[in-house]
Amino acid sequence: MKSKLIHEAKQKTFALVCDKGDEFVGELSRFAKQQNLEASHFTGIGAFRSAVLGFFDRDKKDYESIPINEQVEVLSLVGDITLSENEPKIHAHVVLGKRDGSACGGHLLEARVWPTLEVVLTESPRHLHRKLDPEPGLPLIDLSAGETG
Amino acid sequence: MKSKLIHEAKQKTFALVCDKGDEFVGELSRFAKQQNLEASHFTGIGAFRSAVLGFFDRDKKDYESIPINEQVEVLSLVGDITLSENEPKIHAHVVLGKRDGSACGGHLLEARVWPTLEVVLTESPRHLHRKLDPEPGLPLIDLSAGETG
Amino acid sequence: MKSKLIHEAKQKTFALVCDKGDEFVGELSRFAKQQNLEASHFTGIGAFRSAVLGFFDRDKKDYESIPINEQVEVLSLVGDITLSENEPKIHAHVVLGKRDGSACGGHLLEARVWPTLEVVLTESPRHLHRKLDPEPGLPLIDLSAGETG
Repeated sequence: MKSKLIHEAKQKTFALVCDKGDEFVGELSRFAKQQNLEASHFTGIGAFRSAVLGFFDRDKKDYESIPINEQVEVLSLVGDITLSENEPKIHAHVVLGKRDGSACGGHLLEARVWPTLEVVLTESPRHLHRKLDPEPGLPLIDLSAGETG
Repeated sequence: MKSKLIHEAKQKTFALVCDKGDEFVGELSRFAKQQNLEASHFTGIGAFRSAVLGFFDRDKKDYESIPINEQVEVLSLVGDITLSENEPKIHAHVVLGKRDGSACGGHLLEARVWPTLEVVLTESPRHLHRKLDPEPGLPLIDLSAGETG
Repeated sequence: MKSKLIHEAKQKTFALVCDKGDEFVGELSRFAKQQNLEASHFTGIGAFRSAVLGFFDRDKKDYESIPINEQVEVLSLVGDITLSENEPKIHAHVVLGKRDGSACGGHLLEARVWPTLEVVLTESPRHLHRKLDPEPGLPLIDLSAGETG
């Protein structure tokens, strides 16, 4: 994945472009650590040659996997990056389009890009922290956390 | 729903996080009135335990209801807030993902959040107004309205 | 299509509203040329009375057409504008919702708006260029291109 800062005032906006074969979630996690991203949101489009989606099962308190083993258009990628236990945490959902035009989607667990994924990411100057919520068993954004001064 | 201002120059950017059981459209309408939001747009992801979607029927000039009575991932939430008769008006569309990965969606009439909905909302300093268009019978954004000076 | 600049610092944010019968891709291309847009991204919602979607066929190195000949809600429109051979190039994907709530989507080749399409477009001050990649046979964003000084 390549990146380019396309705007910086107090907010920074990055263009991120994934190359053929990139695994998006891992690439974005590495980028977020390198750049120390603390409160960011992003949208994107492109295509995957395969992906693993998740659907959160309330009883198991875990994601069921939905494997996608075909070329699909990425119709929408929407997500955010926050801090969870002091590490940037990616939260992304996708809608994918198949050859017949039908749409599917879920929580993005992993995705192999082909031929490209074009993402615009905006970083805000304030932090957003996650905290484990035992009811779903998931780290949810806690807007009261992490404020200093 | 909780909110946090994460950036303010001339544009303001808010993180909005809905809690379990929040009805999103009502919560966002209340927030928009409190904050006097006049021209805003937002994106978000999360999950609903139920929702009512709408499909606009051209003949009836009204939305047909599509009830969703199951846990769904919110794959994309895209919307805007404008002024209609001097009140902030929410216009939001969603794509939802079911347990089998299939996608559905529509105009968002109401939605009950579980366990979270994470929204990034950006307010612009200029106003956007709606005006009733009799042909569809809907208030559409009128870019020539509301300019002073 | 009408437009209104709703924020300008170094980034510009435009509200774009399509009228009944507008063909969105052509309208946006004209707007991008008039405004000299070089690196922009946008999201939107609304409805189409018809559209032609594309699914990229890896073997043919071209888009297969998926015609949509019915009224559909535009559940999400996500896209970017970059320079390709010194002309602004639109890249947009949509998710569409049918009367029964089912979702479909693809690369947006053309779309006839009815009754409205509400788009928020943000232009960044830096350029983004595309370059033909012979493997897919598509112009992909080349983040190393076009930098001067």
